[in-house]
Formats: sequence, C-alpha cells, structure tokens
Amino acid sequence: MRNVSVVGIGQTQVGEHWDRSLRDLATEAALNALRDAHVDHADAIFVGNMLSGQLTGQENLGALIADEVGLRGVDTLKVEAACGSGAAALHVGYLAVASGQFDLVLVAGAEKLTESSSCNTTASLAMAADADYETVHGISFIALNALLMKRYMYEYDLVPEDFAAFSVNAHANAVHNPNAMFRSPITVEHYKRARDISDPISVMDSAPVCDGAAAVVLMATDNLNGNRARAIKIAASAIGSDSLGLHDRRDPMWLSAVELSSQKAYRQAGIAPQDVNLFEVHDAFSIMSVMSLEAAGFAARGRGALLAREGAITPQGKLPISTMGGLKARGHPVGATGVYQAAEVVQQLRGEAGKNQVANAHVGMAQSLGGIAANAVTHIFVN
Amino acid sequence: MRNVSVVGIGQTQVGEHWDRSLRDLATEAALNALRDAHVDHADAIFVGNMLSGQLTGQENLGALIADEVGLRGVDTLKVEAACGSGAAALHVGYLAVASGQFDLVLVAGAEKLTESSSCNTTASLAMAADADYETVHGISFIALNALLMKRYMYEYDLVPEDFAAFSVNAHANAVHNPNAMFRSPITVEHYKRARDISDPISVMDSAPVCDGAAAVVLMATDNLNGNRARAIKIAASAIGSDSLGLHDRRDPMWLSAVELSSQKAYRQAGIAPQDVNLFEVHDAFSIMSVMSLEAAGFAARGRGALLAREGAITPQGKLPISTMGGLKARGHPVGATGVYQAAEVVQQLRGEAGKNQVANAHVGMAQSLGGIAANAVTHIFVN
Repeated sequence: MRNVSVVGIGQTQVGEHWDRSLRDLATEAALNALRDAHVDHADAIFVGNMLSGQLTGQENLGALIADEVGLRGVDTLKVEAACGSGAAALHVGYLAVASGQFDLVLVAGAEKLTESSSCNTTASLAMAADADYETVHGISFIALNALLMKRYMYEYDLVPEDFAAFSVNAHANAVHNPNAMFRSPITVEHYKRARDISDPISVMDSAPVCDGAAAVVLMATDNLNGNRARAIKIAASAIGSDSLGLHDRRDPMWLSAVELSSQKAYRQAGIAPQDVNLFEVHDAFSIMSVMSLEAAGFAARGRGALLAREGAITPQGKLPISTMGGLKARGHPVGATGVYQAAEVVQQLRGEAGKNQVANAHVGMAQSLGGIAANAVTHIFVN
Repeated sequence: MRNVSVVGIGQTQVGEHWDRSLRDLATEAALNALRDAHVDHADAIFVGNMLSGQLTGQENLGALIADEVGLRGVDTLKVEAACGSGAAALHVGYLAVASGQFDLVLVAGAEKLTESSSCNTTASLAMAADADYETVHGISFIALNALLMKRYMYEYDLVPEDFAAFSVNAHANAVHNPNAMFRSPITVEHYKRARDISDPISVMDSAPVCDGAAAVVLMATDNLNGNRARAIKIAASAIGSDSLGLHDRRDPMWLSAVELSSQKAYRQAGIAPQDVNLFEVHDAFSIMSVMSLEAAGFAARGRGALLAREGAITPQGKLPISTMGGLKARGHPVGATGVYQAAEVVQQLRGEAGKNQVANAHVGMAQSLGGIAANAVTHIFVN
C-alpha cells in the first residue's frame, strides 16, 4: 500500500445557513482545501453525506460537487454511513490513493439539515437506526440514545451531572474556533439547568442540528517531494461495524464497532491508546463520548465519565478530546462531521490550532460513528 | 496496484417483490455470491443503493447488510451515484482490494423501488437530476430523457421505430435469463404499438420500476493460487463525470462522462473498443443506449441506432449488448443494476450464460450511468 498524506484542509463555519445551499457550502469547503493544498485539481472527488435526498431533494452529490468545484469530468461518487458518512468518504479517499489509481484526491463532507422542518429532520436522522425493528415503533434517534444513557447511569450509579464535563470542555474549546457554531462557554450550572430533549438527555448533552461542509486533500506521500512541511500522514483508516438495532446486541452497553475499529487502527498505525495525543471523539451525545472512550481503550468499562471529571479531556489533560469544540459545540452537520474532525486533527498536528493547541501533538485520532456505533470509522494521523 | 478478480457472483430475480424487504433481497444476493466464491467471509462489504432512505426509511445500509449476511463487524459503507450506485460500489471494492488493505471484498447492490407510491418513486428517481435547476420546475427524469430523444431524432432525422431493435434484442435475451423481470419476446410491432410514457419515450423504450439485488466477491488476483478457474479479472474500473443539469452542457447531444470513463477504462485495460466482445450498456432508455454506443467509441456520432438496426447488438452480432436482457428486460433496480451488469459479464466470460452465451467472449465491458450520464462507471473484465 502507498502511504497517504493530508496536504490541504477547508471548512465552512458550522451553523444554520438559511441563505446557503448544500452545493454552496460544499464548494466553499472544497475550494478552501484545494487552495490550502496549493493545487488546482484533483483526480477524484469523494463526497460524504447522509440526508441530501431526504432534506434537499438531491442525490448524485459526487457529480454535483465535482462540477461546482470546477472539476467536471473527474472520478466521483457519494459515500453514506449515517452520521459517519464524512469519515467513510475519507476512508474511500484513503483507499483510492493507497491503491495507486489516484495521486490526488479531494474528500468533501457536506450536510444541510436546516432546509426542512425539524420534524422531518428528526425523522430522517432516525434512518440511521433500524427501520424495521426500531423506528417503526416511533422511536427517535435521540430517544434511543436516551435509553442507553439511562441504562448506563443505572449500571454505574451515575447522575446526569457526571456527564457535564464533556459539554463544558466542548464549549470552552469552541470559543476559539472560528468555524464553531456555539462559541460561548458554559458552566456545570448551565448544564444542570438545561432543558431535557429526551430524558435524561438535555440540550447540553446533545449536538445541534445544523449545516456545514469540510474538505481535505489527500496525496500519495511519495509524491510530496519533501516540499510540503505541513503534510500530515494518515497512519490508519479503519471501519468496524455492529448491528443497527440496539436490541440485537449481546451487550448493548459496549460499543463493539468502536472497539473493533480502534483496535484495527492501532494495529495499522503500530501504536497503543496511550500514544494518542488527542482524540476527536463522536460526541453527538454525552453518552456516546463516555462509551467511546471505554471501547476505544482510553478508559476502563464504566469509567469513561470519570476520565472527563478528572480533567483528562481538556487541551491540557492527558487525553484532550473535542479540541475544537467537538460535535457538541463546533456542531454536527452529520455527513460533514467526520471530515471536520480530520481537518481539526490536521490543524493540531500542524501546530495551527491557535489557543486550543495541544502541546507536543504528534499523534491524533478521529472517530466518527454511524447510528449508535452501527459503524465506527477511525483515522489516526501523525506528523 | 494489485490486480483484482471476481471470484463469486449472486443475483436475486428482478421483479416487483411486494413480499420481500430490501434487506432480504440484499442478503440473498450476498449469500449466493459468497457461496459461489466458496468463501464464508469477506474483509469488507460495500453496498450500492440510491433510494433506500426515500423509499424504505432506511439509511446506513452498509452495517445493515453486513449484519444480515452474518458478517457483523467488518468494514462497511454505502455508495451512491444515482442509477450508477452499484457500479460505483464495485469501483470502491476494486480500489479497496487493489490498495492491499483488503484481500476479500463483497460488493452488493440492492434497490427496492416498489415499496412506495409510484408518484413518490418517480419524484425520488428525479433526484438524480439537478434539484435546483431541473426538478424544481417539475420535470421528471423520464421527461428529461424524452427531451433528449426528441432532439436526437430531430438532429439525425430518425423516427421512434429506429430505436426498436434495442428493446427487441433486450427482450429476446431476457427470455433465457431466469433472473430477468420480463421473459417475453417482443416484436417491432409490439414496440410500435406501445403506450407513451413521456413522448417520444414509450414503455418499450424504458426500463421498469422494480426490485432486486446482486453481489460479487472480489479477491486479490495474487491470492487465487491458480485454483480458481472461474475467476475473472477486472482489467479496468473508471468513473467519468459531467454536469447534473442537461442545460449546463456545452453539447447536450454528447455524453462526455461516457467518453471520459470509457477512454480511461480502455487505457487501463490496454485495449481498444474493437477488442470488446460484449457490452452491458446502460439501456435505462433507448436513447441512452444509442448515445452510449457513440460516446464509448462503438459507433460514429449519430450512428448509434444504426448499429442496432444492422443487428450488431444481438448475441451473434459484432457487439452484443444487454446480453442477459439489460436494464430494459432484466430490469433496473437502480442501485443494484451496476452489480447485475458485472455479474452478467462474469457469467459470459465464464461461459455460463446458457442460451445467451456470446461465442469466444474474452473481454466484457459494463457501463452504468448516474443521472443522464452525470457520472458513468465503466468496468472491463477479461478471462
């Protein structure tokens, strides 16, 4: 396999972009990434997106974005893996460059969730769950996560406040990220006063519905010719999977796909969890952060929340997470999120993360989940 | 790049499967392919599908199908490129094996179009066109193709009957394909009497709305160990793209994406059009067959229909097309179609095409289009 490096990144601000279309957002991010890479073309464009059909009446995004970016003609397709779509597109981009068929690949993740009624958005997001066995009963995706959080609190004798440190960290980090949706710090008091969405999940446990696009440019490492000091190597790209339905898991309290995907990634990169300097976790809901930290090998079972309470997850801690705001505060435009995470890890490993810079960051990991970790996509980057 | 071979194929019958779900169909095809390959696992599963979200309320098909097939845990994702989704998934599978990350990959294409109202299906299929510039005006995907056919007839002084040979050939070939939807031969008289759907496109110019699934198993050619006599090599896998919107093309009468993708594929395979022994063309509408034959280099501009009238496209002709019935008569479950085409070419190159066997078939080409060739996915197979 050829080695693959990220040589350019681009992001739009995350937010409610009522005045902008999906193609606008994707194009801005893609052009930013090409500019950042100092290239004006790509051999292929892979687009991550979950709900453009449902919410904006448009499929076939690969050809659309390729054309809008000015690269009509190139190899292109869309990748979908629910909320992990962007990261899955990056996985395809990685394989495409590693294979030798393409030297220069653009990966863009884009999502526009605010173009529809919130009711339709909620129903559409539930398509990440099992339509025949879960959503047919009327349960929303948030409610599924709420069931999981409730059970987790019961199993490990926790209260909602034990999850507060995740949101506090995410919001604190978003303050200094110009692309973040929520650039206001919160306190534990804010967390405790927050309105419930689906008991016990409050607005402060939950990533927002929003719009955004991010892109990265990948190049065969052999082709860097030593003149790209800011290139960041992709040391691992791996996907693990699980049942869509929670009911169908031997152990619903353990994210097998996260474990599988993390272990595969560690093997590929030749590292162990303790070598990771920062971790962009899939904090769509606080409970997902907690369970991901455990299954990825950063905390013992039942101890994920403790890691946060001890301060380990802040930029100065031993395992900084959500360093640019995470899904919670940067925002979670679902099919774009995995690409945002990759771009943010690259910012960190380049030393360009500004006030959120993690000191001595050499190994960064990004993990994006589809459904309740029905799939987990893990990338490890090294500088 | 590692060489990649197809070592197993599986297909469900194409039809209106009112009693079966998308997961049922995909699972049957996938298990058939694994059985045919004499393997009981795959390292990764890539699923091609266009409209499961719209029509069956289910996204995240990768994890779903992996689980249903009994391979929960593996690397998996969904690929979408409108009607070219299945072929695009095959492209990803090809890159994945070529890269060296995976030795054994299952590619499944699945689509269930009959689970919704025909009105909703028509609206959903139009998502292959440009939502902001075409479908916003209320035009359906068939109507777009009808505009193209009308203009083509005007440019080259043709009448609908000039297109009849495509449908006659497709139906004749489907008679002997147990997986085909329409196993009844038709005559030019039937064609002439057929009801219009969107003038000048009649039901006999148009592939049916239907359900189906197909799958192939890919293996690194180096790993065959000489004991897989039925393995068929993938000599080329290439995608070309164009604008989604017809209005936006310099020359709407020429399928640039088909030309680009075919030329790339010929270069990869080291062959010329005249080396191709059979061509599974994207005959969703007769006009697409005609224009594809031209842009792919099999007929001069404006002469595609003539090729059919001269009999070149029958199994005994110099360029057999739609050899197992094509999209027209085997059926066109959109996201599955590209994988059906691949499986059928493999049947031909193995010498297992029964009464439709093309004599001395050594080089087979399959081409699948998304939108009005907004993307074209071309695969060349050799035995």
